[in-house]
Amino acid sequence: MKKKLKRSGRLVDMTYFLLQHPHQLVSLNFFADRYASAKSSISEDLTIVKEIFENEKMGYLTTLPGASGGVRYEPAVPFEEGNELVEQLCERLEEPDRLLPGGYLYMMDILGNPGMMNDIGRLFAGMYRGQNIDAVMTIATKGIPFAYAIATYLDVPVSIVRRDHRVTEGSVVSINYVSGSSKRIQKMSLARRSIPEGADVLIVDDFMKGGGTARGMSDLLTEVDAHLVGIAVLVEAQHPERLIDEYISLVRIAEVNEKTREIKAQPGNYREHLAD
Amino acid sequence: MKKKLKRSGRLVDMTYFLLQHPHQLVSLNFFADRYASAKSSISEDLTIVKEIFENEKMGYLTTLPGASGGVRYEPAVPFEEGNELVEQLCERLEEPDRLLPGGYLYMMDILGNPGMMNDIGRLFAGMYRGQNIDAVMTIATKGIPFAYAIATYLDVPVSIVRRDHRVTEGSVVSINYVSGSSKRIQKMSLARRSIPEGADVLIVDDFMKGGGTARGMSDLLTEVDAHLVGIAVLVEAQHPERLIDEYISLVRIAEVNEKTREIKAQPGNYREHLAD
Repeated sequence: MKKKLKRSGRLVDMTYFLLQHPHQLVSLNFFADRYASAKSSISEDLTIVKEIFENEKMGYLTTLPGASGGVRYEPAVPFEEGNELVEQLCERLEEPDRLLPGGYLYMMDILGNPGMMNDIGRLFAGMYRGQNIDAVMTIATKGIPFAYAIATYLDVPVSIVRRDHRVTEGSVVSINYVSGSSKRIQKMSLARRSIPEGADVLIVDDFMKGGGTARGMSDLLTEVDAHLVGIAVLVEAQHPERLIDEYISLVRIAEVNEKTREIKAQPGNYREHLAD
Repeated sequence: MKKKLKRSGRLVDMTYFLLQHPHQLVSLNFFADRYASAKSSISEDLTIVKEIFENEKMGYLTTLPGASGGVRYEPAVPFEEGNELVEQLCERLEEPDRLLPGGYLYMMDILGNPGMMNDIGRLFAGMYRGQNIDAVMTIATKGIPFAYAIATYLDVPVSIVRRDHRVTEGSVVSINYVSGSSKRIQKMSLARRSIPEGADVLIVDDFMKGGGTARGMSDLLTEVDAHLVGIAVLVEAQHPERLIDEYISLVRIAEVNEKTREIKAQPGNYREHLAD
């Protein structure tokens, strides 16, 4: 670009640039060069951007001083907006025509909505922002949009575990696991090169019943010498016993009555992790 | 919010808001209310935002006059930046350790990178911006991130076709199709309620050889009385005959030599569709 812009123009472009580069450290020099402006002006611009971002709780703008310093945008969703999002999600999940045979819920309209997925992704990214995360891992197919939404706002890669083993993945590590709800033995596989050794990984699950799938993914991490940071769950169903302990869920399905077609959805355990 | 903000604050918040709501018509009244400002001030703000967006080719800001009017942000990628992105993609695709047995290419590191996927999604969204698109359709698994990236910037839902038929999808329509490259008969299924009748649909494919998969998805659309708008392809391989005609591809694999492990990648046919 390298073009002299007035403050108003710089603010628009800077906001755009920071939103496109979440969790990346951008140096003052970069902006000074981009707008052919003095670093002191850029500093003032960033103070304005920071104030708006933090007052309106659109996320955090961290400024690091010094020669190697700069600014980093960390996306988040304000407390109130997060709660509204979850309420909206609960309402939609209670729609009776969502009930499928076997007590399953049709969720593809929700998972298929990129706008909603991105809001949810930003919400989770904000909750995990203090922790070091190198990658997000999920299992095909329906968890993928949810995982990408979180990974976008954390700026980390996504690794996809598969129930089948497709030829295009290269060297693969597989484990058997017991599905917590059906008690059947199943198999899951991970492309070995998709998770580097020692990586800190966030596991993502769109619908958790017994937690067997999440537990299986966590075992896969051990297998490739990576570490579990946490488990992000979109919807958890009632279940007598869970195979995992630490997770953050947005919604909990409290009751499903297949006869009356009634579904009761309530907020999950996420509130403890949402900053006021 | 409803809080008096100065122009500088409004510009930051407005940019943020428009980026979060691509392809949505936002009324002047909404912003006037949000910032407790006169519509004339909002109008001036939007002129500044529009100038920066369009000068820096970050996308289009369309203003619709009148009582029901407002402003709509349509994401795009500038010509030069689009070409750089494709060059970068070609270079990465030529890395020799990408070659897998059978002439397949490992692409999960590229498809697993949300930042890169989003840039590619914005690029395609810009190329299809003039056309009415109600939904994006792809086939599980690897096409999903690519499809979501495009759908995010077009603000439309994603519909996922599956090779297996999972119980949680409800009523399903299935077809048999012939894979263009392997000539085998395969089956693909679509949840009937995921595409409304009469919808205009963009098909998305991460890797196209003979085009049989894209052709199958196109046949599925006919089956549910929906219309094909176009086919977006990330990488196309060389193939003697194609089962489809109209598509936009970013990259074409010109040559794969399994012996020397050489891969030659070049830009696809997308340039005709990229505005200068």
